[in-house]
Amino acid sequence: MSRYRIFNTQDAIEYAREFGRCFSSDSRLSAEEIGDGNLNLVFKIHEEGTDRRLIVKQALPYVRCVGESWPLTLDRARIEAEVLLRHGEFCPEHTVAVLHHDAELAIMVLEDLSHCQVWRAGLIAGKAYPKATAQLGEYLAQTLYHTSDFHQPSQDKKADVARFINPEMCEITEDVFFTDPYRDHERNNINPDIRADAERLWADRPLKARVASLKHAFLTRAEALLHGDVHSGSIFVDEDTLKVFDAEFGYYGPMGFDVGSAIGNLLLNFCGQPGLQTPEQASAAQDARIQDVLILWQTFSRRFAALAAGNRDQALAEPGYLDAFLGQVWRDSLGFAGTELVRRTIGIAHVADLDGIADAAARARCQRTALALGRDLILSADALHDSGALVNLLTSYR
Amino acid sequence: MSRYRIFNTQDAIEYAREFGRCFSSDSRLSAEEIGDGNLNLVFKIHEEGTDRRLIVKQALPYVRCVGESWPLTLDRARIEAEVLLRHGEFCPEHTVAVLHHDAELAIMVLEDLSHCQVWRAGLIAGKAYPKATAQLGEYLAQTLYHTSDFHQPSQDKKADVARFINPEMCEITEDVFFTDPYRDHERNNINPDIRADAERLWADRPLKARVASLKHAFLTRAEALLHGDVHSGSIFVDEDTLKVFDAEFGYYGPMGFDVGSAIGNLLLNFCGQPGLQTPEQASAAQDARIQDVLILWQTFSRRFAALAAGNRDQALAEPGYLDAFLGQVWRDSLGFAGTELVRRTIGIAHVADLDGIADAAARARCQRTALALGRDLILSADALHDSGALVNLLTSYR
Repeated sequence: MSRYRIFNTQDAIEYAREFGRCFSSDSRLSAEEIGDGNLNLVFKIHEEGTDRRLIVKQALPYVRCVGESWPLTLDRARIEAEVLLRHGEFCPEHTVAVLHHDAELAIMVLEDLSHCQVWRAGLIAGKAYPKATAQLGEYLAQTLYHTSDFHQPSQDKKADVARFINPEMCEITEDVFFTDPYRDHERNNINPDIRADAERLWADRPLKARVASLKHAFLTRAEALLHGDVHSGSIFVDEDTLKVFDAEFGYYGPMGFDVGSAIGNLLLNFCGQPGLQTPEQASAAQDARIQDVLILWQTFSRRFAALAAGNRDQALAEPGYLDAFLGQVWRDSLGFAGTELVRRTIGIAHVADLDGIADAAARARCQRTALALGRDLILSADALHDSGALVNLLTSYR
Repeated sequence: MSRYRIFNTQDAIEYAREFGRCFSSDSRLSAEEIGDGNLNLVFKIHEEGTDRRLIVKQALPYVRCVGESWPLTLDRARIEAEVLLRHGEFCPEHTVAVLHHDAELAIMVLEDLSHCQVWRAGLIAGKAYPKATAQLGEYLAQTLYHTSDFHQPSQDKKADVARFINPEMCEITEDVFFTDPYRDHERNNINPDIRADAERLWADRPLKARVASLKHAFLTRAEALLHGDVHSGSIFVDEDTLKVFDAEFGYYGPMGFDVGSAIGNLLLNFCGQPGLQTPEQASAAQDARIQDVLILWQTFSRRFAALAAGNRDQALAEPGYLDAFLGQVWRDSLGFAGTELVRRTIGIAHVADLDGIADAAARARCQRTALALGRDLILSADALHDSGALVNLLTSYR
C-alpha cells in the first residue's frame, strides 16, 4: 500500500525538521502554504528567530485548480526531483537545490529562495536583472549539453530516456501547446476582443502545418533532458542569482523547446510592455528584451559549442556538424518560441505580462501583437538565419 | 536464478514439440542447426514423413563468430520477439509468425519458411521476384505508420518507446554504421585494392558532418518502431510471398533508417551487377534495381499517406504536414541508404552482392562504385527532390 497522504502544515513542519537537516532540534518552526500553481502544495517552513527557511513541495494526485475530477500522476514528483538533481549535477549555480525527496509521498525538500523574486514579476515591474539572461543561457547550455548524445555514453543516455519518460505531463504540453490553440476548443481562454484573430489562426493552413512539425519534434526528438517548462514564472532571480525550479514537465525532448520557451517568455514581456508602462519606459524595456534574447542565444550557443569541443562521441565531434546542429536548434527555438506566444495568448494558461494589463483596449492590442509575432516566428523560423534577421523582425513589432 | 541454458538439437526438438503446437504427439522429429548468422542458434525442426517444419531460434549471450569474449545481452531475444509480434499485428502477411517466445530462455518458435529463398541470394542469382519490392513497401508503411505518433495514442507510444529501448544492439549500429567506416579502425574490413578510396573518405569533412547528422538522427528520433536491420538477408521471398525476420535490432528510431536500409541493399546489388553477371544480364538487372527502388518508395509513401488520412492526432493530421514529413523521410532514407552502401563495403559486415564477385579487379571496381554512390547519396540527399533526380543519379553510376 502506498504511504502517500496529503500533507497539512504540521506534517510539512515535521517532515522538514526530519529531512531538511538545517533546523536545530529545539527550535520552533512555522509553516505557510504558498502554492499558487495548479498542481501542487508548497509549504514554506521558517525557523522562528532565525533566517533559516526551507520549502516542502508535494504533488497532488489531481489538478488543483480543477479538483479530483482531473487526476494527474504522482510520478511527476519523482521526475521533477530527478530532473532537478540531474541538472544540479551540471549546473548547481542555476538549479534549485533538492535536499531530500520521496517518490511515494510525492514530496521534495528544497532550498528556500524567498530572498529572490519570480523573474516574471520582476520583468513586469520593470526591474533590471543584468546577469539573468546570460545565466539562463549558461543553465541551458550546461543541462542540455551534458544530457545529450554529445556527452552521455550511448547506453547511459538510453537508460535515462526510459527513466524520464513522462507521458501524462507531456500529453498536457502536446495538447495545450500544439493542438488546442489552433482550433476552437473549450479549454482555450480567448479575450472576446481578439476572437476574430484567433479564428484567422485556426484557418491558417501553412501555420498549422508548421505547428504540426514542431509538435512532431516534441513527440519524437530525444535530444536532451529538458526542464520542459522554462518560463519566467519557473525562475527565481535577484541581482546576482538565477535559479530554475518547477521541473515536473521534464523529459528527453528537442533542445529548442527549452531554449524557445525561454525566448518566448521574454517576448511575451516584450509584447506586453506598451500596456504595462509609460511609452518611454516601454520602449526602453522592449530594447532590453531584444538584447535579452540575443544574450540568451549567444551565451547558450557559445557555451554549448565550447563544451562540445570536448565531445565524447567521435562522429558527432565532426566540427561541421556542431554548426549545423546549432543552426537547427536556433530554428527550432524560434518556432517553439512562437508557439509559446500563441498558447499563452489564447490557450488555457495565460501570463500576467499580457493579462495583467489593466486597460482593456491596450490589453487587446498587446495580445494581438503576441499572436501576430508568434505566427511570424513559427512561419519564418527557417528564414531567420541569424540574430540580425531576428532583431529586424522584432523591431518591426515595436 | 535464470532458467537460461544453451540448447542442443534434442532440447530444440522437445521445445518445438511442446510449444510449436503443430506436430502430432507420436511423430518423429529431427533437428538441424542452420544458424549462419553471428549471434544466434537456429534449429530447423522437421516432422518425418510430413512437410511440417518449425524454427527454434535462441540468442547466445555472446557474439557467435567472436566467442565469449564479446558478450551481448540476451534481452535482444525478447525485443526481437516483441517487435515481430507488434509488426505482425499490423502486417501479418509480411512478418514472420512468432508462435511462442520465452524471454528468460531467449528463445522463439517461428514459422518455417524453407519454401522461400533469402532475398539477397535470389537477387545475386539473378532471379526475379516481381511482387517483392511493393510488398516490402507495404510492410514498411504498415509497421512504421501504426507505431508512430500519427497513429499511436501519445501515452501508449511513450510506454512502447521505453519497452523497446535496445541499448546494446543500437550501440553496435551506432559504431559499425556511422563511426568505424569513417575512420581507420581495426573493426573495418577493407579490400587493400580500394584502401586509397577509404582513406579519401576518412578525410572528407563535409561527408563526415552529414554522417554525424544521420547518426544523431539515429540516436535521437523516436519516430516509429523500426525493424532496425531491413537488409535483403533478413527477408524471405518467393513468387508471391515476402516475409521479414531477424528483428533483434528493433527500437524506436527514424523511419528513414528502415526505408534507407532497404533501398541501400537494393543498391548494393545494383553496384555488384557488373561483377556478378554478363554485361547484358547486369544491365537488365541494374534497370530492375532502379525500378525496385522506385516501386519501394512509391508503395511506402502512398500507403503511408493513405493510412495517415485516417490519422488519430488532430495536429499531425494537417495535410500540409504529411507531405513535409514524407519529404523528410525521403531525404533521410537516401542518406541512410548511402551509409549502408559505405558500411557494407569497408565496414565490419560485408555482403555477398560485392564480396561474392569472383574476379578481383571486377570486385574492386564494384566496391568503388558502391563507395562513390554511397558518398553521393549522403551528400546530395537534400538536393534529390524526387525520384526523377534519384534515377538520374543512379543512371550516372551504370
